[in-house]
Amino acid sequence: MMNVILIFVNPCFPSDSENLFIDMADRLFEDGWKELGYVYVNIDDCWASMQRDAQGRLQPDPKRYSVGGGIHKLARYMHDRGLKLGIYGDMGTHTCGGYPGTPLDKIQIDAQTFADWEVDMLKYDGCYSNATEQEQGYPLMSKALNATGRPIGYSCSWPAYQGGLPPKVNYSQLGQICNLWRNYGDIQDSWDSVLRIVDWFFENQEVLAPAAGPGRWNDPDMLVVGDFGLSMDQSRAQMALWSIMAAPLFMSNDLRTISSGARNILQNKMAISINQDVLGIQGQRIVKEKSGIEVYWRPLSNNASALVFFSRRNDMPYRYTTSLRKLKYPTGSYKIFDVFSEKTATLKDSSDFVVSVNPTGVVMWYVSAPGKLHFHKFFRGGKPRGTEYDAAENALPYAFL
Amino acid sequence: MMNVILIFVNPCFPSDSENLFIDMADRLFEDGWKELGYVYVNIDDCWASMQRDAQGRLQPDPKRYSVGGGIHKLARYMHDRGLKLGIYGDMGTHTCGGYPGTPLDKIQIDAQTFADWEVDMLKYDGCYSNATEQEQGYPLMSKALNATGRPIGYSCSWPAYQGGLPPKVNYSQLGQICNLWRNYGDIQDSWDSVLRIVDWFFENQEVLAPAAGPGRWNDPDMLVVGDFGLSMDQSRAQMALWSIMAAPLFMSNDLRTISSGARNILQNKMAISINQDVLGIQGQRIVKEKSGIEVYWRPLSNNASALVFFSRRNDMPYRYTTSLRKLKYPTGSYKIFDVFSEKTATLKDSSDFVVSVNPTGVVMWYVSAPGKLHFHKFFRGGKPRGTEYDAAENALPYAFL
Repeated sequence: MMNVILIFVNPCFPSDSENLFIDMADRLFEDGWKELGYVYVNIDDCWASMQRDAQGRLQPDPKRYSVGGGIHKLARYMHDRGLKLGIYGDMGTHTCGGYPGTPLDKIQIDAQTFADWEVDMLKYDGCYSNATEQEQGYPLMSKALNATGRPIGYSCSWPAYQGGLPPKVNYSQLGQICNLWRNYGDIQDSWDSVLRIVDWFFENQEVLAPAAGPGRWNDPDMLVVGDFGLSMDQSRAQMALWSIMAAPLFMSNDLRTISSGARNILQNKMAISINQDVLGIQGQRIVKEKSGIEVYWRPLSNNASALVFFSRRNDMPYRYTTSLRKLKYPTGSYKIFDVFSEKTATLKDSSDFVVSVNPTGVVMWYVSAPGKLHFHKFFRGGKPRGTEYDAAENALPYAFL
Repeated sequence: MMNVILIFVNPCFPSDSENLFIDMADRLFEDGWKELGYVYVNIDDCWASMQRDAQGRLQPDPKRYSVGGGIHKLARYMHDRGLKLGIYGDMGTHTCGGYPGTPLDKIQIDAQTFADWEVDMLKYDGCYSNATEQEQGYPLMSKALNATGRPIGYSCSWPAYQGGLPPKVNYSQLGQICNLWRNYGDIQDSWDSVLRIVDWFFENQEVLAPAAGPGRWNDPDMLVVGDFGLSMDQSRAQMALWSIMAAPLFMSNDLRTISSGARNILQNKMAISINQDVLGIQGQRIVKEKSGIEVYWRPLSNNASALVFFSRRNDMPYRYTTSLRKLKYPTGSYKIFDVFSEKTATLKDSSDFVVSVNPTGVVMWYVSAPGKLHFHKFFRGGKPRGTEYDAAENALPYAFL
């Protein structure tokens, strides 16, 4: 499974959930999101009726979803537009919001219900279950979903309930049974919360980065870009760092009222392209300066890479000087594409450069493959001298998507 | 002295300070700021040469300001455009940035130098001085400025160095000698910092609000709207709460590159008009709900008032229900003007209403005087019934500035 980008819609608040999902689907379809890969519309907690039906199956709350159609109708609506539908379940007795859960004895019937509804993804939460039950339940749901024959993306909250780290969490097993997993607490719509998540993921990068790869992703939780709590610089920072982390791009904002600033960030083709790179290698923090500047790096296909210069300062834009050589790049000449300013440059590994990084902001680069060294001998004073770079070898890709 | 609104320019970073101040002055003059009252351009720390001149006078750093003109030339540049110039001094041996201070024995000569340069405001900081010196120095500078015969707004950092509260701080004395004063620590370009300041000022409102009035203002520090750290909702919240506090409106952003979103907030006529209300009464927090909604209130001239509904939540827009009666408004019918949406409404004190407040955001209202009750008797079934409001009495002002 490729990495997912989607919109997460929380239906606990509005009472007209069905219309909300349809509105979001229409926006994805009409406003250029779908083409960029934002194809999932995911229903979060609070969709279910408090009672199972006569056959013991989960059923949607009739106050929120029209009876006799419900989730299945919603899935059809998505599929008719080339979109997909995600749903939420919980492996405990109840969901976190107090709705019926899917404990061990209900896993098979609920997996089948989701498949019957033609659902495309399941987030399987962990409230009201203990470690022993989780150890049985998460693998069991994986098997049950596979047994339905329908491809259903499987998002496991399991590691988040076990502290997110070995030995309690077994990432090789997770990679075998889940497509993505929440490692850590819920994001809040605030910069503090984004920083807490960034810190935890990169402090534990030695453990977490190897766990990720195509079809198995760490999920640091939703983007809050376009909500209420982040400045434009902070929004670019979240988009950049989530792309470095190869994180699933879950939007959480209202697409009906999104500002053009937030839209431009979420629709940035280069950032999405970096996020979705086919190698699926999760990036790492490689520099932590006393000045508050940090450098993040992610290797990409075609021998390219992404760099993010991030400022944790709160005062003024900071002019950070470094070179690609200092960032451990091999000898060569590189083409640089600045993801948010869309400027390009050519840079030798040995050349010092300066990036001006806004407080709580980032500068993000796509860095091409190093141009190969060719021994174009050239002469000065009758003697052969040095080497030259072949610039054609490391051109920027013409299109990124 | 009326309340001040101005731009604070920190010259410690760029080396071409003179040009920076001239650029800001040009923006104030050309981009509609001056007409709204943003007329001061204030030089912060780092402007001075390390050496006093042969006559013992402060002199500007020749690397930053052209010799033979310097600050005086800059003041003339401002005055030619109907703007004003502010400068920075410190009552200790050194400024906070390590430049020459204005201790007790230098107060008279420096006050005269500032007046000779035709400066219009002085921020007198307190680094490298002790409580005893401050007790002498702040009143002495007040006298010295008055003695020059030039009207110079006098901003005292004194209370901030003494914890901001009685008995260490004497607000009646401050009101007599200073025009404005910093009560609390420096603001940072972050929402956390804004919240810390809001909390401190409103937790101590019983002491602080009575200290303020025309010509004597509490200064919770600069607006960081238009910098890097606040979202649009947070920016509106700072503008609204600073207006409730009758705070001097000091901008700190770069006017050359400000976004239209931030500009619209800083140039909101109604918010400025509330901030600058002639009564100069500092507002207060009147409600603190468990839901995270808080209500702030400021009495205004013409028997009007301002209300701010503030959400400290981090999740979703919150629908808050209340009535003007619950907010202790007298019986009557009120015209409401929503400061940021620019919508109007009419509300009876007894009517419940709902405001939807974004996370870390505000809804801000100008509330007209209550319409007087008139005994327009009206008849139903032959019997006289009740009363009616005379709507013409409490119309919204046609123009606010």
